[in-house]
Amino acid sequence: MTAWRTLTVTEIFTDLDKKAVDTLRVLAADAVERVGSGHPGTAMSLAPAAYLLFQKVMRHDPSDPEWIGRDRFILSPGHSSLTLYLQLYFSGYGLELEDIQALRTWGSKTPGHPEYGHTDGVEITTGPLGQGLASSVGFAYGQRRLRGLLDPEADAGTSPFDHNVWVIASDGDLQEGVTSEASSLAGHQQLGNLNVIWDDNKISIEDDTDIAFTEDVMARYEAYGWHVQRVDWLKTGNYSEDVDELSRALTAAREETSKPSLIALRTVIGWPAPGKQNTGGIHGSKLGEEELAATKEFLGFDAEQHFHVDEDIIAHARRVSERGSEARAEWEKTYASWRDNNSDAAALFDRLTAGELPEGWEDSLPEFPAGDAVATRAASGKVINAVAPLLPELWGGSADLAGSNNTLIAGEDSFGPKTWSTGKFSAQPFGRNLHFGVREHAAAAITNGIQLSVPLRTYNGTFLIFSDYQRPAVRLAALMGIGSIFVWTHDSIGLGEDGPTHQPVEQLASLRAIPGLDVTRPADANEVALVWREVLKRADRPAGIALTRQGVPTFARGASAANADEFGSVEGAAKGAYVLAEAVRDGVVVEPDVILIGTGSEVALAVDARESLASKGIAARVVSAPCMEWFAEQDATYRESVLPSAVKARVAVEAAHPLSWYQYVGDAGRIVGLDHFGGSADYKELYEQFGITADGVAAAAEDSISAAKN
Amino acid sequence: MTAWRTLTVTEIFTDLDKKAVDTLRVLAADAVERVGSGHPGTAMSLAPAAYLLFQKVMRHDPSDPEWIGRDRFILSPGHSSLTLYLQLYFSGYGLELEDIQALRTWGSKTPGHPEYGHTDGVEITTGPLGQGLASSVGFAYGQRRLRGLLDPEADAGTSPFDHNVWVIASDGDLQEGVTSEASSLAGHQQLGNLNVIWDDNKISIEDDTDIAFTEDVMARYEAYGWHVQRVDWLKTGNYSEDVDELSRALTAAREETSKPSLIALRTVIGWPAPGKQNTGGIHGSKLGEEELAATKEFLGFDAEQHFHVDEDIIAHARRVSERGSEARAEWEKTYASWRDNNSDAAALFDRLTAGELPEGWEDSLPEFPAGDAVATRAASGKVINAVAPLLPELWGGSADLAGSNNTLIAGEDSFGPKTWSTGKFSAQPFGRNLHFGVREHAAAAITNGIQLSVPLRTYNGTFLIFSDYQRPAVRLAALMGIGSIFVWTHDSIGLGEDGPTHQPVEQLASLRAIPGLDVTRPADANEVALVWREVLKRADRPAGIALTRQGVPTFARGASAANADEFGSVEGAAKGAYVLAEAVRDGVVVEPDVILIGTGSEVALAVDARESLASKGIAARVVSAPCMEWFAEQDATYRESVLPSAVKARVAVEAAHPLSWYQYVGDAGRIVGLDHFGGSADYKELYEQFGITADGVAAAAEDSISAAKN
Repeated sequence: MTAWRTLTVTEIFTDLDKKAVDTLRVLAADAVERVGSGHPGTAMSLAPAAYLLFQKVMRHDPSDPEWIGRDRFILSPGHSSLTLYLQLYFSGYGLELEDIQALRTWGSKTPGHPEYGHTDGVEITTGPLGQGLASSVGFAYGQRRLRGLLDPEADAGTSPFDHNVWVIASDGDLQEGVTSEASSLAGHQQLGNLNVIWDDNKISIEDDTDIAFTEDVMARYEAYGWHVQRVDWLKTGNYSEDVDELSRALTAAREETSKPSLIALRTVIGWPAPGKQNTGGIHGSKLGEEELAATKEFLGFDAEQHFHVDEDIIAHARRVSERGSEARAEWEKTYASWRDNNSDAAALFDRLTAGELPEGWEDSLPEFPAGDAVATRAASGKVINAVAPLLPELWGGSADLAGSNNTLIAGEDSFGPKTWSTGKFSAQPFGRNLHFGVREHAAAAITNGIQLSVPLRTYNGTFLIFSDYQRPAVRLAALMGIGSIFVWTHDSIGLGEDGPTHQPVEQLASLRAIPGLDVTRPADANEVALVWREVLKRADRPAGIALTRQGVPTFARGASAANADEFGSVEGAAKGAYVLAEAVRDGVVVEPDVILIGTGSEVALAVDARESLASKGIAARVVSAPCMEWFAEQDATYRESVLPSAVKARVAVEAAHPLSWYQYVGDAGRIVGLDHFGGSADYKELYEQFGITADGVAAAAEDSISAAKN
Repeated sequence: MTAWRTLTVTEIFTDLDKKAVDTLRVLAADAVERVGSGHPGTAMSLAPAAYLLFQKVMRHDPSDPEWIGRDRFILSPGHSSLTLYLQLYFSGYGLELEDIQALRTWGSKTPGHPEYGHTDGVEITTGPLGQGLASSVGFAYGQRRLRGLLDPEADAGTSPFDHNVWVIASDGDLQEGVTSEASSLAGHQQLGNLNVIWDDNKISIEDDTDIAFTEDVMARYEAYGWHVQRVDWLKTGNYSEDVDELSRALTAAREETSKPSLIALRTVIGWPAPGKQNTGGIHGSKLGEEELAATKEFLGFDAEQHFHVDEDIIAHARRVSERGSEARAEWEKTYASWRDNNSDAAALFDRLTAGELPEGWEDSLPEFPAGDAVATRAASGKVINAVAPLLPELWGGSADLAGSNNTLIAGEDSFGPKTWSTGKFSAQPFGRNLHFGVREHAAAAITNGIQLSVPLRTYNGTFLIFSDYQRPAVRLAALMGIGSIFVWTHDSIGLGEDGPTHQPVEQLASLRAIPGLDVTRPADANEVALVWREVLKRADRPAGIALTRQGVPTFARGASAANADEFGSVEGAAKGAYVLAEAVRDGVVVEPDVILIGTGSEVALAVDARESLASKGIAARVVSAPCMEWFAEQDATYRESVLPSAVKARVAVEAAHPLSWYQYVGDAGRIVGLDHFGGSADYKELYEQFGITADGVAAAAEDSISAAKN
């Protein structure tokens, strides 16, 4: 018997299509066999579904992977990267057979998991399970918001900014909590353009999923408000890949525009490998020579040949570009007509796609008067609201802490169906304020999805302590190099009475360890404005903004670099670390006896310590360090000018784990920090109890000066 | 009108009970008012439910909070700590009125969130939403496993080791992904003794939950396999606290022993505060003088009096100890009879509750022959299996990576209903191997729950990269000081082809920053055994064990400290860091020219570098550092002996972010690590490409020697 005897429906797939799908299976098995490791199982069994999507269902144009009108495809189980790579190869996105052959090798375009920015046609880096599906919700959020900004009046489905998001998800994706959070939001948001195929193969690494996964997934998704369908390729008792049935389900999913859709597609992993199909063994290991040969024979392929692709097959598959061109041409007409009728929106769109900020926008940034005690979170709220009118691309929200995170844009609607408006928030589908509920992880993953999908800038807020809940998504933002913004308030023991469960200690150091993430912690209200400015200018990397709950003084500053009389201009913050207050003796700037490096709320302690040291004749320089990642980008001359290597006496002060600072203070340095958990009390009491005070900094400075002399 | 006009059912609550409940409400409002911050809303509206549980439903003995036969109570919304503190005060657990008055102040027994080990009667530290509910699933796991170990044959409900777990959960708890994961497992596991009251008050911090939380929670929990009930105190249109109805639902929940139970209790947050009830405003802020007075007046209390508790009320409430004593006496009979009939099990129970390990158990630890290349994860699997027969308290499993994490105990059943046995795993309710599915976060939270609930030692396994998913629960384990064990394999770029999404870089440093967590990374198979030994001896703190995917050499060692001819005995690993190989010149141990500090798989690179340095006449000492937290516990003399302060030339080598090492290598030191993401290729290629090689270490050593001279 041949494989295709079991593919009952032929209306959609021609004989060439069938051969193409079988070729995909063989290539998947060959590729893993060659490198010796990888995940052939789902790449084999998902071949018909993926081929159907790319060849017959999705609107896409392989000649332009960035086409704004394209449907988005997200492969949430990134380990099945071949499922995607083979479609990109077949569709003509730039991958060729040699790339498939180079799977999982150094420098190839086909790494173990799909990597955004590395391979054309990869919309998102996936691998850590749950992230792809969770971020796909953000893709749909982004589409709707951009559509609302640019073309709000067009009838559904008629705008050049309407498109569908197609997702393949695995058992593992559906078990991860982050997808539960995001799926609940997807249902709440009625994301009709989000369509998910769940590869319901009942096998994960520990084999039969009955050992740990027996819930009624369909009922759960119905409870979230999703449209659910089953396509059971085992319904006859034999495995029969009824592509027509799947196609009908995909059409129904697309046509259901008031709900996200889940299609449970019952597949047999690794089919048709005769010995290993339907086992955990084929999930993440090569088939082995014998099994590979048997599979090829079963499919009517020559077992001796490897990576064999008939020319007519690849030629046939690449004809998808014709479908793409037609769709593109049609879209271009709609797009041109939209441009003609919406010149302001078109100008905005051009600016957004160019990655530019509007001229003069920086003038809208607020300046805060010196002297006032302002919580930096409050300053952040003012900055957001000040720039919001000029930057329609800026939007965001909080994981149920809007008032605490100061993330609301006043006067703007919330993003959501009108029916879910509340006494406090007026919702509409194109609204600007996001409400994630108590779902920090989904907030981060959705923010990533938005950033990947459309040229907007999106922030989400929570307490800094709950960055722990977001880490997998924060890391992916850094790995992908996308401009997700994380507003993290209540950034230390300064949050006070809520106590150690809510007080970050290790979070700042832990986040700074993530490569590619800018961790900012502005010292006063004006640094907040500066930090937001810089973050908004850097759309190619994520940033966290750590903000205080408590008030901190707004420093009186001069107009330029710090000098004997004046504190440094806030402009220095753009360089990540700068001299806020110079070392002065007898009214003259001198080489510092000691450098006091602080961040956030503790810079004020350093400033006070400088005063008390001065009364002892010790000239201390205060360096405010709102972002050590930006500081590291500066040239050596600048860095040396801020932290002269000759000055060994150094104190870092930050109400956080000291791990961040050893590298900057050196052997003679001292760190005033916190290497234990906090406590529940008024924050001033906590600072006293833990010795994070101006006196503590001054004492550490004297200690460091002694150490430096020895 | 008085409040109790709305309490329709009086069969269960006497007039004194009603007055007691109103007193709880007033105390909650007074306590928050006094300190000026806190969460009065749910403490007021949950007062009847909590009082019902503690006074009429739960089996507990306030004179002995550690009684093994007690029902467990978990307040998942820890911000509503007053809900618990007031019950502990009323029941007589040791809290008195002055403790309530000291809410959220330095050194009090009543911190902002309940802290395990700090206040008698607090079963678990809660606050980060979702953790309490997720860990409650672990409480039920622990009960069943211990029962299976000690009293497997008794009929359901007749064993002294049968008890119920009662949970109060909030809207926020039900939105968090970790509870979705854990709740799915709870349904799968048919945890009949787990009973959850969901405080369905439709208010969270952003006010009406309709803005972000509109899923059908009950349908979702039915989909997980839970028994669900609704108790709607608004069903009449007026708010009527029908305690009888709640009591019937709790009884039904207890009597449903084949499924976990969820009761949706519709409450009005902050009831009966006339102006602020049913608003987000009463969630986390004091009522204010006027509203507080109005509330007191509504309840028939003197608005001028604060913290007023009628003597008859507290006396009445404390009579719960009589119910407790009776229950205890009855239990003691069952317990004594069990002891009489199960002397072996009783001896085991005594050992476990004493926190002791059996004599001679260490002899079962395997010794691995020198020279073999063994992946440390494989060695870990051997250790677990070697000690398992002697340590029945040791159990655990993996988040769908059992084969990769080497966490299976061979020959043991899986923990689960028999119906969920698979071709690969035989399940039974008292089984030993845990299967968490692809749910890393729940795996950690459940492990914590088990550790809190019963005197067992529980491990869970996943890849080190996915420790990111577990962080909130790992942190709580550290904060609570409980012996959760995290087996983290695939601990570096050494995992190879799966690429950067799966390769930990910043994880080791990030985890080391968590106070109270032991982060271990053994260098070879024998260090693995030693590390497991030490971890098992330290039940009062959590540990992570980072293990390689790839093989690493097993070092040939002498029987004692390192000397000129022999490597140091593995016993040194117990001190966290030790001299593995001495600095030798001309056959004699000398002061090191340079110290090479390594962990895990990179120790072998340091060993090789020492050889090549020796050929240049450079005497290098190799320090293996499997756990810097243990090293920090050693006295200064020992630490100085390993890392003599006179030796400034130092190199740390670890295939991870360098952040951990600046403090140990100092100004002249060098770190061979990785401050960027990994790549997809064979691991040997990655080590070469990233310069993490013996040559790299040797070059860094020479560099450091030069720097130290300057």
